This record gives sequence, C-alpha cells and structure tokens, in this order.
Amino acid sequence: MTNDMKITRPFDMLNSSLNKQVLIFLKGNVWIRGKLKAFDVHLNIVLEDAEELENGKPKTKFVDVFLRGDNIIFVTV
Amino acid sequence: MTNDMKITRPFDMLNSSLNKQVLIFLKGNVWIRGKLKAFDVHLNIVLEDAEELENGKPKTKFVDVFLRGDNIIFVTV
Amino acid sequence: MTNDMKITRPFDMLNSSLNKQVLIFLKGNVWIRGKLKAFDVHLNIVLEDAEELENGKPKTKFVDVFLRGDNIIFVTV
Amino acid sequence: MTNDMKITRPFDMLNSSLNKQVLIFLKGNVWIRGKLKAFDVHLNIVLEDAEELENGKPKTKFVDVFLRGDNIIFVTV
Amino acid sequence: MTNDMKITRPFDMLNSSLNKQVLIFLKGNVWIRGKLKAFDVHLNIVLEDAEELENGKPKTKFVDVFLRGDNIIFVTV
Amino acid sequence: MTNDMKITRPFDMLNSSLNKQVLIFLKGNVWIRGKLKAFDVHLNIVLEDAEELENGKPKTKFVDVFLRGDNIIFVTV
Amino acid sequence: MTNDMKITRPFDMLNSSLNKQVLIFLKGNVWIRGKLKAFDVHLNIVLEDAEELENGKPKTKFVDVFLRGDNIIFVTV
Repeated sequence: MTNDMKITRPFDMLNSSLNKQVLIFLKGNVWIRGKLKAFDVHLNIVLEDAEELENGKPKTKFVDVFLRGDNIIFVTV
Repeated sequence: MTNDMKITRPFDMLNSSLNKQVLIFLKGNVWIRGKLKAFDVHLNIVLEDAEELENGKPKTKFVDVFLRGDNIIFVTV
Repeated sequence: MTNDMKITRPFDMLNSSLNKQVLIFLKGNVWIRGKLKAFDVHLNIVLEDAEELENGKPKTKFVDVFLRGDNIIFVTV
Repeated sequence: MTNDMKITRPFDMLNSSLNKQVLIFLKGNVWIRGKLKAFDVHLNIVLEDAEELENGKPKTKFVDVFLRGDNIIFVTV
Repeated sequence: MTNDMKITRPFDMLNSSLNKQVLIFLKGNVWIRGKLKAFDVHLNIVLEDAEELENGKPKTKFVDVFLRGDNIIFVTV
Repeated sequence: MTNDMKITRPFDMLNSSLNKQVLIFLKGNVWIRGKLKAFDVHLNIVLEDAEELENGKPKTKFVDVFLRGDNIIFVTV
Repeated sequence: MTNDMKITRPFDMLNSSLNKQVLIFLKGNVWIRGKLKAFDVHLNIVLEDAEELENGKPKTKFVDVFLRGDNIIFVTV
C-alpha cells in the first residue's frame, strides 16, 4: 500500500489488498499465503492460488480456500 | 473453479462448489472430505459420501454429515 | 437418507433424520448415539434411548439427553 | 419421560423434567446432580438439593446452585 | 432459600440471595466467596467483603470485586 | 467504597471507582494495576499510570493501557 | 497522552493514539508494535510499519497488518 492511500477504517486495508498476495496467521499456528479474492465483515476470506506454510516453506497448495474469520489472528501484505 | 467465475463475496466460492468434492479442516485437527450438499451463513455444512481422514487416508465413512460452522477453520476445493 | 430427498439447507438433513438413529461427536472427544427427537437452530438436540460411547462401545445409557448445540462438532446418520 | 409425552423442541424435555432429578455434565469434567427448579433459553439452570459428583460419588452438597448455561455440555434425566 | 420462595426463572435464585453470602466457581479453578451486592443478565456480579479461596481456605481479601459473567461456572448459596 | 454508596447494578461499582486505583485479573494469569480512567458496557477498560504485576511486584509500566473486556476475569478496588 | 486530554470512553484513548506508535499484546503471547492507522468498535486494528517482537526484539516486519479484534488482550502507548 502506498502512502497515498488513506486507511480510515480497518477494512480499507483489505479493500486495497484485493487481488494481491496476502499472508494470514490463524489460530493453531497455521500460516496461509495467497491472492485475496473476497472478504466480508466477519473477516471470512477467500484466497486463490494459496498455500499453507510450515516454517515459512510451502506445504500444501489450494486452488481456492475459504477461511472462517474467527480463526484469523492477523492479515498482512 | 475456473477463472471465468468471479468471486466477490466469500460465500460465492461455496456456492460454486455445490455438489463438488471439498476438503474441510476443523478445530482439533479433524479433516473431512465429501460432496458439498448445503451450507448456510453460519458455515454449517452438510457433506454427502464423506469420510474423515487421518494422515490423509480415509478413516471413517459417513453417508451424510452435518458439520457445525464454528468448528471449521477452512474449506478448500 | 435416500438420494430422492434433496438437501438445500443444512438443517434439512436433521429434519429428515427425526426419529432415526444419529451419532454425534462433541468437543472433548465425546461420542453420543441415540434417536433424534428434537433440535433447534442453535443445534440444541434431544436424543432418546441414547448412549455415550467409549472406543466405539456403549459406556453410559440415557433415557433422554439434551445436548447443548455449541459443543457439537458434527452429527451423522 | 414416558413415551406419551411428545418432544418437538429441545426445551420441551427440560419442561417435562421440572422438579425432577437431573444429571448435568459441564465443561471441565464437572458433574452435578439435583432437582431441576428453573431454566431459561440460555440454558441457565437452577438446581435444588444438588451435589457435585466425583467418580460418580457425592463430593459437595448445595442447597441451591445456579449453573451458567454456556458451560453445560448435556442434561440428562 | 426457604421452600416458601418459588423459583420460576434462574435469576430468581440470585434475587433472593442479594445481601447474602454466596460462593462462586469460576473458570481456571478460581473460587470466590462474598456478599452478593449486584448482578445483571450477563451474570456480571459484584461481591462485597469477598475472598478468593485456595483449597477452601481464604487466600486474598477484596473489599469489592466485580466478576465478569462469562467466566462464572456456578453460583451457590 | 464506603457503605454509604449503594450498588444496585454491577457497573455502579466501576462508576464509583473512576480515577481510583484498581487491580484487574485477566485470563492467562495477567495482573494489571492502575488508575481507572474509562470503561464501557463490554468491560473495555482504560487504565492510566498502570503496571503489569508478576508475583505481586511491578514488571512493566504503561502510561495508558486499553484492556479488552472479554479477557477480564475480575476487577477489584 | 498528556493530562490535558480527557478520556471518558475507552475508545477515546485509541482515538488520541492515531498515527502514533502503539504496542499490542495478543492471545498466544504475540506482541506487535507499529503505527496505529485505523480501528473499529470490534477493536479490529490496522498498524503500519509494524513488527512482531520476540523477547522484546523485532522478529518480523510488516508494511501493513490487520489485527482481528478478538485476539487482542491490551493496547498500550
């Protein structure tokens, strides 16, 4: 995100990350990386061309994955 | 899901997966695979011809199984 | 459930299982089997002639048991 | 409960158990037995002449005890 | 509570216990005893002249303590 | 709080504790002490001149700290 | 925050911390430090130029990170 884009509400950050690569940290020490395709106010998220990471390295690939919002700890770009 | 189908909300992915094989990861390290028959906004899901997996191999078969949404971590196709 | 019955919402599966034997998996690795007498939208469930299972074998019998919905992981027929 | 009483909603079972002995299993492996005096839709329950059980034997007696609904796993008669 | 007082809803028991000594069991195996001064529908509770117990013996004294309702397992008189 | 102040609802205790020193016990065995500056109905709390305690002794100091309500077990004065 | 700014509701503290460095403690013993860019009533928070800390030292850097509110224990300035 460039400094030109102003974030005033938390979900603005996700809006500006659509179709970009994001890294998501879930409860249970699960890390998933992929292209952000959709999200809703519950933080339910769909990633495309995603992969679960173990020790930072790809472990399992997913064409499409739906992540339930309430297991998400953080989303970063 | 082909690239032709546009996902704009997370549940669109589930809609386009109806009657297809999905793999679901639940809390407590439970994996269940089956044909997606129904879901609702709470992510309650019914699978048909389902099986619980252990170390990636079938362990128990279920004709029909109702999964309570709040134990689901992710759903993948 | 025969293939003739169409499930379009998850609770349809429970409706078609009323008065039939179901197997329920609860948090804490508790398994209970019994005849499905009633359920509501919170997945609160009453079973009749029920039994708790340990390693797949009957451990305790219950004439009637009320299961609180939010401890249920899945219900299968 | 006799077979003459029809349960159509889960709370019907509790209604028909008022002033009767019930056994309640709570999270944390706590078992409490007593006479069912009151309950509400959150499954908050008051028992009279109750006792906590340990290995099926009485451990502590309570004249009246208010159980918060969301710790209850099941209620049986 | 005498048998003369009728409990029809769970919170009736707490109402009839105002200004009396109660014993509260909280998640994490915490026991607190004190005089019940106030409660609300979320089971938030204020006790006066309270003490935390360890193995049934007083450990820490509190002039006033506000207990958040959702950590409470049971309240007994 | 003197005996002259009547607590009729739990939050009355917090109201009468504004700008006074309080001690808060959070999940995960975290203790924080500080001056109560603000709270809301979710029990979100702001403390000023606060410190986290370890074995009853100051460990970390905070000029201002916002505590999320649902991690709070109890608040005492 | 200077003593001149009056906090009357907990979120006032976050409002007065916008664009300032904050330190956030999350469940699972995760510490994240960064510039507060946005928050909402669920305590969802976006930090800019953030870093996860381990034993108080920077471990991972994030250009932008969205923290889900219900994992947050406290936010301090």
